[in-house]
Amino acid sequence: KAGWGDLDVRAVDTVRLLAADAVQKVGNGHPGTAMSLAPLAYLLYQNVMTHDPSDPTWLGRDRFVLSCGHSSLTQYIQLYLSGYGLGLDDLKALRTWGSQTPGHPEVHHTPGVEITTGPLGSGLASAVGMAMAQRRQRGLFDPDAKPGTSPFDHHVYVIASDGDMQEGVSHEACALAGHQELGNLTVVYDANQISIEDDTDIAFSEDVAARFEAYGWHVVEVDWRQDADGATYVEDVDALLAAIRSGDRVSDKPTLVVLHTIIAWPAPTKQNTGKSHGSALGDEEVGATKELLGFDPKKSFTVEPAVLKHARDVVKRGKAAHREWDKSFKAWCKANPDRAELLDRILAGKAPAGLQKALPTFPADEKGVATRAASGKVLTALADVMPELWGGSADLAESNNTTMEGQPSFIPKGKQTREWKGGPYGRTLHFGIRENGMGMILNGIALEGLTRPYGGTFLVFSDYMRPAVRLASIQQAPVTYVWTHDSIGLGEDGPTHQPIEHLAALRAIPGLDVVRPADANETAAAWAQILTNTDGPAALCLTRQPVPTWDRTKLGKVSGVAKGAYVLVEESRAGDPDVILVATGSEVQLAVRAAERLEKSKVATRVVSMPCREWFEKQSRSYQDKVLPPAVRARVSVEAGVSMGWHDVVGDAGRCVSIEHFGASADQATLFREFGFTPEAVVKAAKDSM
Amino acid sequence: KAGWGDLDVRAVDTVRLLAADAVQKVGNGHPGTAMSLAPLAYLLYQNVMTHDPSDPTWLGRDRFVLSCGHSSLTQYIQLYLSGYGLGLDDLKALRTWGSQTPGHPEVHHTPGVEITTGPLGSGLASAVGMAMAQRRQRGLFDPDAKPGTSPFDHHVYVIASDGDMQEGVSHEACALAGHQELGNLTVVYDANQISIEDDTDIAFSEDVAARFEAYGWHVVEVDWRQDADGATYVEDVDALLAAIRSGDRVSDKPTLVVLHTIIAWPAPTKQNTGKSHGSALGDEEVGATKELLGFDPKKSFTVEPAVLKHARDVVKRGKAAHREWDKSFKAWCKANPDRAELLDRILAGKAPAGLQKALPTFPADEKGVATRAASGKVLTALADVMPELWGGSADLAESNNTTMEGQPSFIPKGKQTREWKGGPYGRTLHFGIRENGMGMILNGIALEGLTRPYGGTFLVFSDYMRPAVRLASIQQAPVTYVWTHDSIGLGEDGPTHQPIEHLAALRAIPGLDVVRPADANETAAAWAQILTNTDGPAALCLTRQPVPTWDRTKLGKVSGVAKGAYVLVEESRAGDPDVILVATGSEVQLAVRAAERLEKSKVATRVVSMPCREWFEKQSRSYQDKVLPPAVRARVSVEAGVSMGWHDVVGDAGRCVSIEHFGASADQATLFREFGFTPEAVVKAAKDSM
Repeated sequence: KAGWGDLDVRAVDTVRLLAADAVQKVGNGHPGTAMSLAPLAYLLYQNVMTHDPSDPTWLGRDRFVLSCGHSSLTQYIQLYLSGYGLGLDDLKALRTWGSQTPGHPEVHHTPGVEITTGPLGSGLASAVGMAMAQRRQRGLFDPDAKPGTSPFDHHVYVIASDGDMQEGVSHEACALAGHQELGNLTVVYDANQISIEDDTDIAFSEDVAARFEAYGWHVVEVDWRQDADGATYVEDVDALLAAIRSGDRVSDKPTLVVLHTIIAWPAPTKQNTGKSHGSALGDEEVGATKELLGFDPKKSFTVEPAVLKHARDVVKRGKAAHREWDKSFKAWCKANPDRAELLDRILAGKAPAGLQKALPTFPADEKGVATRAASGKVLTALADVMPELWGGSADLAESNNTTMEGQPSFIPKGKQTREWKGGPYGRTLHFGIRENGMGMILNGIALEGLTRPYGGTFLVFSDYMRPAVRLASIQQAPVTYVWTHDSIGLGEDGPTHQPIEHLAALRAIPGLDVVRPADANETAAAWAQILTNTDGPAALCLTRQPVPTWDRTKLGKVSGVAKGAYVLVEESRAGDPDVILVATGSEVQLAVRAAERLEKSKVATRVVSMPCREWFEKQSRSYQDKVLPPAVRARVSVEAGVSMGWHDVVGDAGRCVSIEHFGASADQATLFREFGFTPEAVVKAAKDSM
Repeated sequence: KAGWGDLDVRAVDTVRLLAADAVQKVGNGHPGTAMSLAPLAYLLYQNVMTHDPSDPTWLGRDRFVLSCGHSSLTQYIQLYLSGYGLGLDDLKALRTWGSQTPGHPEVHHTPGVEITTGPLGSGLASAVGMAMAQRRQRGLFDPDAKPGTSPFDHHVYVIASDGDMQEGVSHEACALAGHQELGNLTVVYDANQISIEDDTDIAFSEDVAARFEAYGWHVVEVDWRQDADGATYVEDVDALLAAIRSGDRVSDKPTLVVLHTIIAWPAPTKQNTGKSHGSALGDEEVGATKELLGFDPKKSFTVEPAVLKHARDVVKRGKAAHREWDKSFKAWCKANPDRAELLDRILAGKAPAGLQKALPTFPADEKGVATRAASGKVLTALADVMPELWGGSADLAESNNTTMEGQPSFIPKGKQTREWKGGPYGRTLHFGIRENGMGMILNGIALEGLTRPYGGTFLVFSDYMRPAVRLASIQQAPVTYVWTHDSIGLGEDGPTHQPIEHLAALRAIPGLDVVRPADANETAAAWAQILTNTDGPAALCLTRQPVPTWDRTKLGKVSGVAKGAYVLVEESRAGDPDVILVATGSEVQLAVRAAERLEKSKVATRVVSMPCREWFEKQSRSYQDKVLPPAVRARVSVEAGVSMGWHDVVGDAGRCVSIEHFGASADQATLFREFGFTPEAVVKAAKDSM
């Protein structure tokens, strides 16, 4: 039982009215859910979650994810009431420039917000990642502790909405959550049956409870709408708490509480309507609601001091829990000095000292290796030196080379297969054919904060992950994508599988580093640079087909990779070259071959390998000008993708060797030849440019 | 009962070996599923589907969708056996340059292929669209016919795989299919439990049957694997046929047949392995399989004449069915001359003659209207003149203005709501919050061929739809996207909802027309141009906020929209202008204001409105040079998105007024000001460029 007294009930009504007032003040927003979910939100922050408002980043805290991010007030008002530092003025500044209370919750912006949500389904799916990360972290730092006794034990709580349940990513992530038996995850699904097109019956009639049972979840239903017209609506908080707590006894399944509510309860005329979902209620309706709840309809943002004081008692409880945790954490540190050292390094955001040394180097080889294969070797080499690194693939492990050799799978004991052995604390992730779910889960893992995740699929399927990639960029989450089969060079699978527009489309995303190494050693250097950065996601775009491993005693040093672009082949003559060939990935070899021919015909030709435009743009102007002397206007870009974006590099006089249409099904040599990716084509472009 | 004789059994074994041989010959591909699904595929083409191999585009045919497109041989071999024109040589040319048998099935490329598949989930989801379209088409052309008596009646059959079921889009589309009570859709799910990472138990343990029952589907299970080790594997074709036929008696639910198979059956050592999913079996294994089935292991591509002759009998049956259909179709034509005329026009790929005349014109208005609102008025105005046009939104009807006023919803009678009335033949689509599902469904509707669909969401959520948009482009499907809230101008919802990189990222997709009109009249002209094109998808990017409606008596004519770009404001002086401002959408007003200021300081300034770069690129060089005189190097682009791609237009001397980072939560006026979208900023950029 929640044991709520009058002050709690008053606090909950205060929450409803603050939500209505805040939206009313700015004139737009989403009041309805914040009103009807006031009891749930208050219950979570006051009675359910272990948290310490005085230390929002406490390692031992439970995580809270508001998957229905549009109802940001659901969270903001609790952050205010429970003492995270938000004030009434912040609520009054809802959805305005520079405020702590933007339209949707933003991590790294508002203390107490764990994750940026808004795009539906994303929060729920990322919460699955948090729950997975919690288990992996426990395995990494405190595997032998009994359940519930480790400072690394915590729980993930989610509020989700009808919209979250409709989005495909909820299927991907929640099916995997059931499969992974995530007993540390509890989702309360607000089944209010209202979205922007009003009654969700117009498009949504699935049995969500049965669906989640089919995924292997523990499902409990709580219905506050005793009768259909809401006449006897009773917010039975004890029943809700019991439902949530029932999950504590089910350690091998995530819990879904299906909570049937009436949106905007108890607004007299706008409850249970689509209007109350996404629009201000209007002064009259807000006033009427205040009267109904025994508040002065003429006053706004009313918070009685006794209510606030009572609610803020949660700080005391949080500090006490935190003190208890400190004891066990100290004991853990003492007992596990090596692990404590690892934790310190991770919390400091530092890459391991031995990172560079651990990297493999690949001998020069004209035939070479595929960069995906090189990437696999790098990962295996990093396994011991970087224990926080883990990842896997969306069912393409062998194709993406994402498995660190010899590392166990992250999988419940009973779900090992003949090909994959492991356990609940394993390291190799198996996402199934669920790319967007993988992306969102990677975000959740990164946000949990103690491990560093990567995930692979074919580059063409980065399209499926785009919503997650964008959220990684917005949240500056250090997620690494291993996207292999990065051009028509993948061959026979044909146009549906051949990326054409993807490199450009990904470079368009602010804050995402798109890295396309040219050979095996560039791949190793790219991994090192990516793992040294901690402020955002990076995409490694890798070949299916072998590419030459360059002889670094004769060509530019691989350390240039970290600068995003560098001179791989110097022109033969002093002074500026006649032409610069700029290439990435598998097309660097075409530029090198073309340069040989051009030099034979006395054209001083420079080849610049440009694995990462974003890194290059961060270099000093003088370095940039050294690599690409401004006086040299004859320039050619060579990349097996659309030319979009390359005009910035090659300029008005430049030429782009590119492909502006979809690919075809044939072997890669034929495709490169037929689609004009040959040394001859590069030579011709160079001459045209000069 | 299927009533198969020895020749049918031999034909099925022939199919298995053709699959193994074809992959073996090219050296790569997916033999396993084509082998084990040989009985199913043969059953569908021989016993289940109504089709006429001599006329692959016959209106009355059932549709077949191979959602597991990697198993393209499953379809190619049936197309060969049943006489669609493919020969043995085509099977031998599998996955090679220029062949009729590319890696994945491609519509418009191989006769008998209805849809391009490969990306998992896409075929299944588009099949839902086909089934929806069939119902709408029937309502449009023959609403009063009794069930099963109309020439517009047909059924949609799908083969799906484990991977299809894992993808999120299967959830979105199949939940909607259940909701829509699509009795005309039958999916056979090949539950072989093998994908690239071998046993799917590693990531996939949901109860698919229970899940689809939760969606409201009719579900039947058929298990050919009588015991776990496959020792008593029995391909009970009669049980399978009975399961498929059981759906005929359930007119208000789609049917899912869960068929448990062993992949690559009966290959002696590679059956039931991940290797057999995506790799050639090897000569030895193929030979052993041949021996097992009583074929000569030394011969490849063996098809006994009697087997081929027997299989080709389906042509006779198809022609007979076609003749029967012709009678009912002729009767329908006679009884429905107006509808027949409409059908003729649609089949000819022509827009209605009255299209231009039906368009609304909007009076000049400085305050103006949002282009999304103008779009809504256009749609309503087109309702009567273009009956084949229909669409809706992913739960944002009111925001996207996608509803033709007064048109009924497409919804089962029992699922109407207080806000939305309609019926099974209705016109307003409700996709729920399922953007990618919507996109795939739109593709299916367009591929069905008799109606023209559109679908709306916020532009930022085009990310969720990207896999579907790419497939629309690959398939040249005339789908229209109504993407509103197309910049930071949407205001308070903040960075998760504000598109930044989306216009660039969409322009990168080959074959997609990205259209961003500047005012209400440009919006009408844009719709007209889009609806006149029939060879690919188009994206309408529309504002949330009002934009001025230009006075066309003083400024450039709106007919310029069809050319992609045109001079909106002429420079004041004869000869070339000093500077050209190129803008799109809501930023055109900034260019116009800036031009006024520049002209005041004697700078001859031209404003070019460029609603669609793809249309402009199709114009003659002379028109392009007239709009953008090559001699004028001082150019500024103005668009509230990343500058990527604009360098091509403005050149080395040009400047881009753009935004290269994520947005923020505030009112739109503040955002435009704070992020540098002001006339002053454009003036400064113009001066910098000169």
